[in-house]
Amino acid sequence: MREVYLILADAAVELVPPEIRRHPAVLTNASRRGKSPAEILLDKSIHYPAMKRLKDHEKRGRPDIVHVCLLNAHSSRLNREGLLRVIIHTIRGEVIEIDPMTRIPRNYLRFTGVMEQLLVKGRVPPKGDTVLMRRLGSRLRDEIRNRGIDFVVLLNEGGTLITPRRLAETLAAHERPAFVVGAFPRGDFSEEVYGVVDQVYSLGNMLLDAWYVVSRIIASLEDVVGVWDK
Amino acid sequence: MREVYLILADAAVELVPPEIRRHPAVLTNASRRGKSPAEILLDKSIHYPAMKRLKDHEKRGRPDIVHVCLLNAHSSRLNREGLLRVIIHTIRGEVIEIDPMTRIPRNYLRFTGVMEQLLVKGRVPPKGDTVLMRRLGSRLRDEIRNRGIDFVVLLNEGGTLITPRRLAETLAAHERPAFVVGAFPRGDFSEEVYGVVDQVYSLGNMLLDAWYVVSRIIASLEDVVGVWDK
Repeated sequence: MREVYLILADAAVELVPPEIRRHPAVLTNASRRGKSPAEILLDKSIHYPAMKRLKDHEKRGRPDIVHVCLLNAHSSRLNREGLLRVIIHTIRGEVIEIDPMTRIPRNYLRFTGVMEQLLVKGRVPPKGDTVLMRRLGSRLRDEIRNRGIDFVVLLNEGGTLITPRRLAETLAAHERPAFVVGAFPRGDFSEEVYGVVDQVYSLGNMLLDAWYVVSRIIASLEDVVGVWDK
Repeated sequence: MREVYLILADAAVELVPPEIRRHPAVLTNASRRGKSPAEILLDKSIHYPAMKRLKDHEKRGRPDIVHVCLLNAHSSRLNREGLLRVIIHTIRGEVIEIDPMTRIPRNYLRFTGVMEQLLVKGRVPPKGDTVLMRRLGSRLRDEIRNRGIDFVVLLNEGGTLITPRRLAETLAAHERPAFVVGAFPRGDFSEEVYGVVDQVYSLGNMLLDAWYVVSRIIASLEDVVGVWDK
């Protein structure tokens, strides 16, 4: 294995959509933050009253899930050794690349600010040579092909049962494997995501939180690759 | 091993202290939330201008660290199997017990609301038979003795180098072991915490984030105890 990709898929991260930008819950929140409703992140904990009329609303408005997944992934020894790459695929189909050295904001409000900048401007920071996060113009399928990702596993409670250790061994047997974790609270993966997957596995007959699946698989990858033996 | 304790030590969680309750950064934040300055959690991301005059200010005002550690611990398979107990020891020396079945609020603002209730009222919820979180009157040393904790390891980058796997094996060789992770951003553990520790270990010659250390040790404990083999 040269490097392993974590794909946070159908991530519940998006700007407030046009249909609800005039809802009082959105307008109040936007004006308090001194931003336009089109420039703020959809957040169920704040915009819940407005979200009921949105399609698939149970699957949306949870940037906190991506936040904790990124904190876990970026703090890992696997990432520090340069073996991990993270891609966010959002519920809108956008694909976001993150520099592995990026320090993810610890504070949730700072994190949402960064994600808003990313979704409005297309990159963070908006100018300059250094790019920490970038929205790519491509689709998920193209990114997987262009990067030479040769094996894609998706984690879902309906998949074939496997232990974290065995999964890590299976991934590590490839040059550039990827594991896909859903970064949304409820519902199923999109057709687009299923379309790029080679194999569906499950870590147990129970719903597991995304951030736990992320750190759990990274831990076993660390053991299999031997980052602690150095 | 019957059960293992995670002790989140010197946790940077406290109510705004009296010295800075009249600072504009605190007053604005409190009035916006409709609370008294004595009832809100000290948070560096909000109260930074007020905190400069506090003793040990670099070590304080970071409830986000405990939040992510708790999310990781409570979502783990080890916890779901009933093998993990979590205790928070705060920078003020308070000891907090959390029911293992507690669903930690995913949203940071909700989490701070719960911690404020806990520190003001002493328990969550404030009334009724069910207690999810409780502030114990005792000191850390007493809790360790009363619960029959028979081996306490502290993680610190200055300790004896050990791999997560070897550490998990060392812990699991005891009936009721505990591992201590610092839930503060900078500085050293308090004398009180060092006073209860049998052994100091390090997972590597680098600063590791608390939430990563928590999930990393839990993962190896899961492997050693064999929770995935069922």
